[in-house]
Amino acid sequence: MKAYLGRRYRFSASHRLHVDAFSEQQNREVFGKCNNPFGHGHNYWLEVLVSGQVDAVSGMVCNLVDVDTFVQQRIVAKFDHMNLNTLPEFATLVPSTENLAIVLWEILKDFTAAKVEKIRIEETPNNAFEYAGE
Amino acid sequence: MKAYLGRRYRFSASHRLHVDAFSEQQNREVFGKCNNPFGHGHNYWLEVLVSGQVDAVSGMVCNLVDVDTFVQQRIVAKFDHMNLNTLPEFATLVPSTENLAIVLWEILKDFTAAKVEKIRIEETPNNAFEYAGE
Amino acid sequence: MKAYLGRRYRFSASHRLHVDAFSEQQNREVFGKCNNPFGHGHNYWLEVLVSGQVDAVSGMVCNLVDVDTFVQQRIVAKFDHMNLNTLPEFATLVPSTENLAIVLWEILKDFTAAKVEKIRIEETPNNAFEYAGE
Amino acid sequence: MKAYLGRRYRFSASHRLHVDAFSEQQNREVFGKCNNPFGHGHNYWLEVLVSGQVDAVSGMVCNLVDVDTFVQQRIVAKFDHMNLNTLPEFATLVPSTENLAIVLWEILKDFTAAKVEKIRIEETPNNAFEYAGE
Amino acid sequence: MKAYLGRRYRFSASHRLHVDAFSEQQNREVFGKCNNPFGHGHNYWLEVLVSGQVDAVSGMVCNLVDVDTFVQQRIVAKFDHMNLNTLPEFATLVPSTENLAIVLWEILKDFTAAKVEKIRIEETPNNAFEYAGE
Amino acid sequence: MKAYLGRRYRFSASHRLHVDAFSEQQNREVFGKCNNPFGHGHNYWLEVLVSGQVDAVSGMVCNLVDVDTFVQQRIVAKFDHMNLNTLPEFATLVPSTENLAIVLWEILKDFTAAKVEKIRIEETPNNAFEYAGE
Repeated sequence: MKAYLGRRYRFSASHRLHVDAFSEQQNREVFGKCNNPFGHGHNYWLEVLVSGQVDAVSGMVCNLVDVDTFVQQRIVAKFDHMNLNTLPEFATLVPSTENLAIVLWEILKDFTAAKVEKIRIEETPNNAFEYAGE
Repeated sequence: MKAYLGRRYRFSASHRLHVDAFSEQQNREVFGKCNNPFGHGHNYWLEVLVSGQVDAVSGMVCNLVDVDTFVQQRIVAKFDHMNLNTLPEFATLVPSTENLAIVLWEILKDFTAAKVEKIRIEETPNNAFEYAGE
Repeated sequence: MKAYLGRRYRFSASHRLHVDAFSEQQNREVFGKCNNPFGHGHNYWLEVLVSGQVDAVSGMVCNLVDVDTFVQQRIVAKFDHMNLNTLPEFATLVPSTENLAIVLWEILKDFTAAKVEKIRIEETPNNAFEYAGE
Repeated sequence: MKAYLGRRYRFSASHRLHVDAFSEQQNREVFGKCNNPFGHGHNYWLEVLVSGQVDAVSGMVCNLVDVDTFVQQRIVAKFDHMNLNTLPEFATLVPSTENLAIVLWEILKDFTAAKVEKIRIEETPNNAFEYAGE
Repeated sequence: MKAYLGRRYRFSASHRLHVDAFSEQQNREVFGKCNNPFGHGHNYWLEVLVSGQVDAVSGMVCNLVDVDTFVQQRIVAKFDHMNLNTLPEFATLVPSTENLAIVLWEILKDFTAAKVEKIRIEETPNNAFEYAGE
Repeated sequence: MKAYLGRRYRFSASHRLHVDAFSEQQNREVFGKCNNPFGHGHNYWLEVLVSGQVDAVSGMVCNLVDVDTFVQQRIVAKFDHMNLNTLPEFATLVPSTENLAIVLWEILKDFTAAKVEKIRIEETPNNAFEYAGE
């Protein structure tokens, strides 16, 4: 009996969408006001969807504490209240939410208490990105 | 690296569920108060889910501006603050939210900047319909 | 010990903002797309805020069942899935949400189990009106 | 033309996560404060996702009234305002939300007006479980 | 320059509305299914509204950390994942949300970093209680 | 007949809480991770509450278009996708949300179509500030 557990976490960060190889005009055309100098920011919601057999004794897919501890230590502690552009992961990578999803997915590969199926990041209430490692 | 982008749009419209071929009693039995004469209305939320490779340079599945422009011009401008029953699309089609989903899906076939995977329409906070062209 | 109880109810209705005494152009200028012929609609949320002494024995400001019964019978049954323009209350009154608030306030004057302090109507997620009988 | 209909229902219940075969210490280690004696509770949201062909005449996957009646009579009437641990379903089963999902899924097997594809239970705003009978 | 800061906290608890001095029938009449034996539960949201002068240097009404620490230690640690009926505060008091508001208000009297103006407790998404010590 | 209209707007910005006159240690003690170098960001929701007599003919407190135009041109265009620390308003003022509220209030003094009663800014889903010019 395989069930899915989705768990949501919030962190606040800033970013600027900018490609060094683009001209100033290209950057404005491609990224619009997301290219504004000095950056802007969001309250990001991360939803981690994991799956697994429901344990016959404990009744759990996995222990929520394990998911919370992993995400708190490896993701929230690293990204919350930070400027994404200044992190090593984005040294040569545009900190778009698509790329943020790929970066978080790579980190979640180390989570072994259950299978990580998909992540979803809401950048604004009307905007969300999903990534499943395909 | 294939990612998914979900983008939400809101429009307010009215409709009446009614089938001309049904007797008055049949209409009441099938549609209940949704058959009330003169119609009623909803704030509809449309979520468009598109997918694509994350561009190695821009870091984007597709440009949000392209999705916004398409949906604004082809969908919101047409359906917002309208009575669905008076639109040509629903001349011979009950404007149920299922049929609204099919109608919007057909319009979204013209969107080419990314692959439209699925749409979801929330008719009320407790009610949603999904369609993927199957 | 005076406490306040807020209770939310939802109903779906349609309306058209239109003043017969205005010219067609005036109606468009004042009401914009809310003047579209045939109307449009919303999911309205009504929040009723009542107050009263917390009863020393039952621990309640008033019985929720009493509020629910009143609002269900006198408001939801009357306005849900209706076109506001066709109701007698709006025969000579524009069915703006401000006027809807005043109409609902008048109905709530008959509620006597607690003092009605204020009502709030959300017309859309970004739009709300409050009325307290001033 | 196959569409999906998601419908949400809310019920409030209490539970305590506890395995008789575990020692007191094991119970605390595995379940943390969810093992607190006397239980605690949640507002659960259940989303039932059904699918079906959109009827060419009525424009509906299935009648919402049928879904509402089934869930109201078979699920909400049984679980709302109850302590899950005292129900026969959980006599020998930990009332985790994973197991609650499996129990509700079994009940929904009797729903025949459309195909039940998946259920989703939100235990808290940041916590959700999905089950599809796999 | 006086500003207001509202801060929200969540805790999950169970309760049963029951008055020993009432007959079984009276309890059912007054409290309905909230009187079900063994209790039920909710995800409660507490909003604490404090006010104060905006500090000319720090730009703050008060330090959020101070509010968080107080509410975490004095309220969340005490009420989260508990059965309210078993707490000393409710030994002779019905654990209605009105009374819960009064109990939390008394605890918040010890908070001195800013003036506590009002508290609001949401028991369900459609149900909220406010108390300001009147 | 005086009614209140609340209208919500969203903008995304970044900021860093930092006082030049404080030592590095003081900044960390007072502002915690909000003092992280390079800033972080939020999706801010601004709710503007205005009041006025309900016009006997148009049924409106004031025209929503007037509120939208003012807030769009004077506030959203200026603050959306910006780093607050780089704006002239915050040259010598910590860009705390309390101070942001005061700055927006000053701008709204120029709005004359209705009386601005109060503004509310949500910095995160659990955090809101209100200011009314007191």
